[in-house]
Amino acid sequence: MDVGSHSVAFPRRWWYPVARSSELGRKPLAVTLMDVPLVVFRDAAGVPAVVLDRCGHRNYPLSLGRVTDDGLLQCGYHGWSYDGGGQCLRVPGLRQVRTQSTWHVPAHACVEQDGFVWAWGEPDAEPTRPPYALPVVGGRGAGETVFRCDVESTLRASLENALDVPHTAFLHRGLFRGNAPRNTITAIRRPIEGGVEVQYLGEPVGMGPVRLPESSGRTFDHWDRFLLPSIAQIEYAVEGWFRIVNTLVQLPLSPFRTRAWFVVRFSSPLPAPLVRAVVKQQGRRILRQDADALARQTERTRSLGGERYASTELDLLGTAIWRLLHQAERAEQPDGEDLPPATISERQVVFDA
Amino acid sequence: MDVGSHSVAFPRRWWYPVARSSELGRKPLAVTLMDVPLVVFRDAAGVPAVVLDRCGHRNYPLSLGRVTDDGLLQCGYHGWSYDGGGQCLRVPGLRQVRTQSTWHVPAHACVEQDGFVWAWGEPDAEPTRPPYALPVVGGRGAGETVFRCDVESTLRASLENALDVPHTAFLHRGLFRGNAPRNTITAIRRPIEGGVEVQYLGEPVGMGPVRLPESSGRTFDHWDRFLLPSIAQIEYAVEGWFRIVNTLVQLPLSPFRTRAWFVVRFSSPLPAPLVRAVVKQQGRRILRQDADALARQTERTRSLGGERYASTELDLLGTAIWRLLHQAERAEQPDGEDLPPATISERQVVFDA
Amino acid sequence: MDVGSHSVAFPRRWWYPVARSSELGRKPLAVTLMDVPLVVFRDAAGVPAVVLDRCGHRNYPLSLGRVTDDGLLQCGYHGWSYDGGGQCLRVPGLRQVRTQSTWHVPAHACVEQDGFVWAWGEPDAEPTRPPYALPVVGGRGAGETVFRCDVESTLRASLENALDVPHTAFLHRGLFRGNAPRNTITAIRRPIEGGVEVQYLGEPVGMGPVRLPESSGRTFDHWDRFLLPSIAQIEYAVEGWFRIVNTLVQLPLSPFRTRAWFVVRFSSPLPAPLVRAVVKQQGRRILRQDADALARQTERTRSLGGERYASTELDLLGTAIWRLLHQAERAEQPDGEDLPPATISERQVVFDA
Repeated sequence: MDVGSHSVAFPRRWWYPVARSSELGRKPLAVTLMDVPLVVFRDAAGVPAVVLDRCGHRNYPLSLGRVTDDGLLQCGYHGWSYDGGGQCLRVPGLRQVRTQSTWHVPAHACVEQDGFVWAWGEPDAEPTRPPYALPVVGGRGAGETVFRCDVESTLRASLENALDVPHTAFLHRGLFRGNAPRNTITAIRRPIEGGVEVQYLGEPVGMGPVRLPESSGRTFDHWDRFLLPSIAQIEYAVEGWFRIVNTLVQLPLSPFRTRAWFVVRFSSPLPAPLVRAVVKQQGRRILRQDADALARQTERTRSLGGERYASTELDLLGTAIWRLLHQAERAEQPDGEDLPPATISERQVVFDA
Repeated sequence: MDVGSHSVAFPRRWWYPVARSSELGRKPLAVTLMDVPLVVFRDAAGVPAVVLDRCGHRNYPLSLGRVTDDGLLQCGYHGWSYDGGGQCLRVPGLRQVRTQSTWHVPAHACVEQDGFVWAWGEPDAEPTRPPYALPVVGGRGAGETVFRCDVESTLRASLENALDVPHTAFLHRGLFRGNAPRNTITAIRRPIEGGVEVQYLGEPVGMGPVRLPESSGRTFDHWDRFLLPSIAQIEYAVEGWFRIVNTLVQLPLSPFRTRAWFVVRFSSPLPAPLVRAVVKQQGRRILRQDADALARQTERTRSLGGERYASTELDLLGTAIWRLLHQAERAEQPDGEDLPPATISERQVVFDA
Repeated sequence: MDVGSHSVAFPRRWWYPVARSSELGRKPLAVTLMDVPLVVFRDAAGVPAVVLDRCGHRNYPLSLGRVTDDGLLQCGYHGWSYDGGGQCLRVPGLRQVRTQSTWHVPAHACVEQDGFVWAWGEPDAEPTRPPYALPVVGGRGAGETVFRCDVESTLRASLENALDVPHTAFLHRGLFRGNAPRNTITAIRRPIEGGVEVQYLGEPVGMGPVRLPESSGRTFDHWDRFLLPSIAQIEYAVEGWFRIVNTLVQLPLSPFRTRAWFVVRFSSPLPAPLVRAVVKQQGRRILRQDADALARQTERTRSLGGERYASTELDLLGTAIWRLLHQAERAEQPDGEDLPPATISERQVVFDA
């Protein structure tokens, strides 16, 4: 796919979430990773595997087949059967199977962790690190809710949108900060291991319809984080009272289509089921607005042949995300092996919100 | 868009109608000019403006935003706000706005005339002439009706179809000349200022279901006109009795999609509301047939990689329209500045209709 | 259309079926041959003709017109009228018609045979051979049934699928061989005039729900045949008992879309209407499964940029079909005139089914 002058990057030597553990049962599951069709399945022991979704014989999608009782993925067209490493072990009718290299389908290393099946982005390769471990939020009233959304946008645009503060007053007018009195907020951007974070100081406590009177003098602890290659994290807390961490685990389905799972973990004085219900309902409303805006933005940049962004000091993360992503991709090129990781400078900004 | 060997031309230093005055209220309006998305809006004084429909910040369509109380076009994503000249005057949250050249969105000169908003085809440029002024038809029983139609065709094919006489007996069989006895008609083609016209002599008086007996000996005064860049005009009159001028004001939405407004002005001994009703009803029927035929023709030329037209002496205007359009475009190229306008020779043809 | 690394070939100096005789009445019929739009019509004497579906004047599809009383194909836009050889004989309105070479539309040689209208693949050219004659199946309980199916696949994939035995146990599980006990079958591949055939030995007698007990010791006479450029034939018989010949007459509508007519001719001790009903019902079920599988295979090879097939000794016909097709196309190139036809070696394979 021609991506024009869009900020599309796909660093391959990283983990990507390809399915939630709970959606992968006995039937193979089809998914794409940057337009490459993959099939996820569990072998006889329940261990997940990920291979290219194309039978080596006549290129029929393996995801239309089934898993045999002995845990092989069997093609639905002529019955060729593969193990989790992509080896073809059975060809029905053939009296002697001498597995040949052309029969092999590319396989991706695979682990199951934090309720997700993660696949290594590069096929037939050994992972060089573990997947990102989601933060644990424990204690009083702890709970979790997960929801999923596919957006028509680049991974970069989806990540930037998730971590962007200024748009909330316009796109989410009413739901968010729009109605509140003006506040002066200080934001500090810092590099972190494998990513970048911004810490916000001075933000009044409130979310959606629940809002603390300003007289309380309390402010949020608030961090936004990006972690390579596709994780966005928003953390709000008030010391000793509550903590909510929303981790967006993202899968670039194609250059212009991104799947995001929102894993919201929280603890608070309120009953977990109540918090879960409010988070889910509010989350979905915000999500719909964001997904719609991202689709419109994508349509516009594509119809005009590419992105032409202007940025101000308020765009604290967008450019940093792109530099990290782009650099991670560049470092995997034959001529990029000696490149240092992108450096994100520390920066402080004061703005009105 | 690759236009293959199609007669697609887009002279930019001309006026194009982008909206009817009546459809442009408080909300910004999205439109395209040869695939370029534009947004039309009225400032606080009601004066229309046309700018590129892409916010300079994150490329969100400005037409999804709103006009502020002080007449700026405000983006719906982060609230950047622009004046009619495309200058960004406000960035919410930012403590000091120092407008920068990269924040500018291209703007098109714009005038409101004859019930239309006209935009100059070249952005950030000074118009060198006024828009075409529609003819006034006054006197007894004078009236006007306007209708709009989007057709799937090049501007050239739409213009040729509008001004083509021979197809009426076939495509509009029954509605038009098809059933009438044969007549011998003389057509004279002449160049006019910025275009070309054909005058028809000997045409019996009639239109749709209304038809004068041949014994009356009366014939129409009938002219078909093309005026650069996108205007077709059909004028029928019987001296001292009635006059009807149908001016098609056209907007090339894309190389293969053209918007046409039919501005029909008339005077006659009949009550204006009656004439308006008949014109509108007959007009819409003819229009549907033409729009369908143009779509089929476009589909066919595109599926076969381009136009391969043969012409006879009956095709009085098609080739002339194309030469004028193509030459007007050529004259705007850096190497075309000294080109003379296309010369359309005077020609006379006798045919049966 | 870019066909990537797909096995798409279009030998032109061959006959292709463009319509069934019974579907071509008074109205012209539109069809495509490898993306080229053609119109099929009958002249005043009922003789079929095939010309390019584009009027030489303004490129309107001729198939939207009508056949005049004197058997000309008249365009629906301006009425230009053509004979079966593509000559324009009438231009309405024009006082003198001096037919010119640019008015000509390309015409394809055409014959009606075996209930089909066949067109020569190369326009304005003289055929060098007759169309393939379908085999006659006569005698007791003889009958015929014909059905049609358009599949989203290359001609090659459709041909291979039609003549492929191993997939029946998987894709048509239950309908076909899937449930039967295992048998050892010997297949012998041989070149034949203009094609290739495979003969199967040792196949137990049965089809769909009807199945002979193995104790009978009787086996099918079974042949699968490919005949250039687009014919697949499956013949089953039991000497002195019954014979069924299924001839697939195929038309490549486009590189990735193929129309197949199934002409099933049979004789048996059962009443012909009963056999016809069973064949039609079973045939349609099998066809739906095959059409769906072919569409999925096509989607997958296209999304991954081409075919990457691996073959075993069980793939007796696929590669042979492709070599014959490809070679037939190559032989028509200016530098291919001296090429010998592809040689298909005789081969014997034993397999389980």
